[in-house]
Amino acid sequence: MEQHQGQAGMDLPPGFRFHPTDEELITHYLAKKVADARFAALAVAEADLNKCEPWDLPSLAKMGEKEWYFFCLKDRKYPTGLRTNRATESGYWKATGKDKDIFRRKALVGMKKTLVFYTGRAPKGEKSGWVMHEYRLHGKLHAAALGFLHGKPASSKVHERTYAACVCLVVTSLIDRSIDRLSRPD
Amino acid sequence: MEQHQGQAGMDLPPGFRFHPTDEELITHYLAKKVADARFAALAVAEADLNKCEPWDLPSLAKMGEKEWYFFCLKDRKYPTGLRTNRATESGYWKATGKDKDIFRRKALVGMKKTLVFYTGRAPKGEKSGWVMHEYRLHGKLHAAALGFLHGKPASSKVHERTYAACVCLVVTSLIDRSIDRLSRPD
Repeated sequence: MEQHQGQAGMDLPPGFRFHPTDEELITHYLAKKVADARFAALAVAEADLNKCEPWDLPSLAKMGEKEWYFFCLKDRKYPTGLRTNRATESGYWKATGKDKDIFRRKALVGMKKTLVFYTGRAPKGEKSGWVMHEYRLHGKLHAAALGFLHGKPASSKVHERTYAACVCLVVTSLIDRSIDRLSRPD
Repeated sequence: MEQHQGQAGMDLPPGFRFHPTDEELITHYLAKKVADARFAALAVAEADLNKCEPWDLPSLAKMGEKEWYFFCLKDRKYPTGLRTNRATESGYWKATGKDKDIFRRKALVGMKKTLVFYTGRAPKGEKSGWVMHEYRLHGKLHAAALGFLHGKPASSKVHERTYAACVCLVVTSLIDRSIDRLSRPD
């Protein structure tokens, strides 16, 4: 059977793609990465989103044609604060819309935030066509995953730096957010 | 790594799905089936669409959650005619809209027709939520594929019965055709 080589050397027959649901990303990828930093996924690379411009990301990904998946450690803007540093050399990621809750059956397992990249500096940045979805674990699941890693009870203090899976979607033109559903199966 | 068993026993990591483009279906699946009737695909089953109702198809498929893929021999309505028999016991498939041309780079390789299932008998059938996309090879490619099988030149007579790949999309409610783009990567 004809095989297609992904960048990770994964042999997939024609037509097979990495196309996870929101819940699959949380349950099978992010939760595992938070529980064990050594967890490596075929389809998800690692990137520091403060050090790359969005247009650099496709070449850093393991696979993908219009979407590229990364684990990214969340960098705190201020050591004691909760704001995440979202700036790069060329611009910044700005959150848009409302975070979406992600469920596994009836349990809340994570949240998804949508961000758009602006070139320049706030508040005078220029909107680009790059869109990112950032996934994070729900508080209880997150604490449980860290508890598993370190053998501490789930109520232990949350670490200063935490993994969040980030998904970057490329769009070639300025479009409304309804298009971010096109590639995501329900 | 956690694996998910498809009905065909295919081991895929979480989040990997069969999600081919129109061109991939034509080039890597239909053209091969026409060239060699013994060609078997992991993700594409065989079905006789005149003998099953659309609601029977998911259980006959090799895999799929909202879309099910089949090779189907086109049955001629009349032995000497070109009309395809699209009736089942409960109803019939009716073409809608305009056929779409499918290209591989700049070459026309196939066409895609959209059909909707109606219960009852024409012209008084009742529209259902079942939608099918039927793919067929472009004439030259088709003749070339048959030529390959039988060692005859490409201009040889087309066989009376030919394979067309049929894709069934399930929709749970009556919706407009713009939704048929939701699951198909460009």
